[in-house]
Amino acid sequence: MSDSAVNLAEKLALIDEHWSPRVIAEMNDIQFKLARLAGEFVWHQHDDTDETFLVLEGQLRIEFRDHVIELEAGEMTVVPRGTPHRPVAEAEACVMIIEPRGVVNTGEAGGELTAENDRWI
Amino acid sequence: MSDSAVNLAEKLALIDEHWSPRVIAEMNDIQFKLARLAGEFVWHQHDDTDETFLVLEGQLRIEFRDHVIELEAGEMTVVPRGTPHRPVAEAEACVMIIEPRGVVNTGEAGGELTAENDRWI
Repeated sequence: MSDSAVNLAEKLALIDEHWSPRVIAEMNDIQFKLARLAGEFVWHQHDDTDETFLVLEGQLRIEFRDHVIELEAGEMTVVPRGTPHRPVAEAEACVMIIEPRGVVNTGEAGGELTAENDRWI
Repeated sequence: MSDSAVNLAEKLALIDEHWSPRVIAEMNDIQFKLARLAGEFVWHQHDDTDETFLVLEGQLRIEFRDHVIELEAGEMTVVPRGTPHRPVAEAEACVMIIEPRGVVNTGEAGGELTAENDRWI
């Protein structure tokens, strides 16, 4: 894949599930994932890594224990490691998630929204 | 900065130089940089890391010794470590560069287009 252009819109069109990140590229041990989000995710945290959200379409709210970050398309934020957070998308949001290979989407919380890793599109 | 939304368009508006990447976010040891590119860069390589280019506005061509990758807005690619490459923008392109902290933009080549690192906006 490193020898070609990766088109984000074309990759997004291949995703038909919510909360199911798909890998589109890797840089060293970092994965670039696309996901369609809708509704409320679970509260969770990642103790060993920061996690980056870049909104491509729609709006994403990331709730923290003591504040909220509202992200529009074209906006990003980095959730610091060890920080409880909950992504919420009132309507569908398309996002790029950037984080090290192997990170589980629900962190330590687990549950039915836990997605399989390393699903490339 | 991790406690707020980073708006890419607002950050790009702060940049008035070409080939001068500015840091907008960090995730672990990875930096997210924005840059305005115009014209031909120097041939160079990064022996210790892959390097990610995501085009936000315009078009970017990345030349390799034996092929070329053409990137439109909304497209990305990862240049593998140790691979000689040359970014070329016929007209101005706005890009996000994602790579580990400390990577020098001209790699081993150096020269007058070498940019200062860790310039945050």
